[in-house]
Amino acid sequence: MPEARSVFFVSDGTGITAETLGHSLLTQFDLPANPVSLPFTNSPEAVDAAIERIEQASTSGLRPIVFSTIIDAGLRNRLRRVNAVIFDFFDTFIAPLESELGMESSHTIGRSHGIADPRAYGLRIDAMNYALSHDDGATVRHYAKADVILVGVSRSGKTPTCLYLALHYGIFAANYPLTDDDLLSGRLPEVLRPHRQKLYALNIRPERLAQIRAERRPGSRYAALRQCQYETTRAEGLFHQEKLPHSDTTTMSIEELAATIIQTCALPRRLY
Amino acid sequence: MPEARSVFFVSDGTGITAETLGHSLLTQFDLPANPVSLPFTNSPEAVDAAIERIEQASTSGLRPIVFSTIIDAGLRNRLRRVNAVIFDFFDTFIAPLESELGMESSHTIGRSHGIADPRAYGLRIDAMNYALSHDDGATVRHYAKADVILVGVSRSGKTPTCLYLALHYGIFAANYPLTDDDLLSGRLPEVLRPHRQKLYALNIRPERLAQIRAERRPGSRYAALRQCQYETTRAEGLFHQEKLPHSDTTTMSIEELAATIIQTCALPRRLY
Repeated sequence: MPEARSVFFVSDGTGITAETLGHSLLTQFDLPANPVSLPFTNSPEAVDAAIERIEQASTSGLRPIVFSTIIDAGLRNRLRRVNAVIFDFFDTFIAPLESELGMESSHTIGRSHGIADPRAYGLRIDAMNYALSHDDGATVRHYAKADVILVGVSRSGKTPTCLYLALHYGIFAANYPLTDDDLLSGRLPEVLRPHRQKLYALNIRPERLAQIRAERRPGSRYAALRQCQYETTRAEGLFHQEKLPHSDTTTMSIEELAATIIQTCALPRRLY
Repeated sequence: MPEARSVFFVSDGTGITAETLGHSLLTQFDLPANPVSLPFTNSPEAVDAAIERIEQASTSGLRPIVFSTIIDAGLRNRLRRVNAVIFDFFDTFIAPLESELGMESSHTIGRSHGIADPRAYGLRIDAMNYALSHDDGATVRHYAKADVILVGVSRSGKTPTCLYLALHYGIFAANYPLTDDDLLSGRLPEVLRPHRQKLYALNIRPERLAQIRAERRPGSRYAALRQCQYETTRAEGLFHQEKLPHSDTTTMSIEELAATIIQTCALPRRLY
């Protein structure tokens, strides 16, 4: 196993872009890394403090790796003094993009994860409030407003996916947990039928479901493998019969689920 | 105003990295763009379909712009046939990173937003459930487990920030809405005092607060500017007196708030 490497994400804004870039690249290497984020590095003093911090992290002669998304040219130059390997995102891509677009970049800090557009911000909060008030079938009154309604047994991954869709894309996502009665009847609940075109089904392998439920209610009938097998099998039969688009959430991340649902249902992405 | 340009985010995974990087670059230009995500472009057929879609979007002789994070070398080469400008993130950074690290990359798809680590996944769901069950002071029993407790008047931005901290960083964030009694007493509520070190205060300008509240309960006392002025002034006095770290959420995005709170409180980041 190679030695752990010090890794820094340096940004004059939130650091999210630097982290996304650096993390994506690092996952391509079997390398133990100690990542540190240095957001809001937006003044000469902050850059100097970052340089000091980075150079102190140099281990056994291995230079730290720095992923930077600093936009200000002066600060970027200042950071270059650091004794480390710098991967500079804007340095690399802004010039070719300027040339392709035939215009200069604005060099404005914090545009990508700032509050650039108050309308978009309001939309995302509305979508979050919608997800919260339509969580777990709490209310079924405003399904007409939903972009998508996730259907599945309890703990199949509906809530985090709804919240993620809301916070990231401004998508109005409700969720409906299948009840014992629904599973027994083997038919779509009455309340969902008018919204058939908006349904997306989530299912999960019973062993994983039992494990998740046991963390909430250990030793309960709810968490018993037998009960989980019954519910997931009945749910699968229902989804199949109703020909609902569906995903098995057992080994999918929330991001993968969200991207899959958006693509499958051709959902309107209100934020980028 | 320059003509709108067609922009594509092409990825063999969720597309999140391509979108984040491409979006960050584009925000540096005053350019109307029509962005389209093409996630899960992970087969020769999918690449060919992407190429067709991209080339159809070419407007008035302007080549579309493609931000790609395709990892597979064969698929990446195939995409290069497209009549468009390609900004290829892995192509650009993987080779210099391989040389610096002295090892080859694994070329594994979907590592960065996949379910790589089930423990991390469980943690994030636990953090989300914690945020949901400790939202709006719903329960104050498990504050000992909190990494941070956000304090502020109703609608000052506590809930979305808590959920964002949970989903992105696996941070356990509770929130406590200041009541009329709290504001009148001008002291920290009893229940918060043992957790003083975990408190982070949010405040907001009264005009913005009135606007947000009016969307929920138009014409109510709750949404009246006068009431909002009273609450935010009393809250500010309390935060000042108690010397709590705080942010004005009026013009901050959820991402900025989250990054600021993590930095100020030196919170443990459990996910990257």
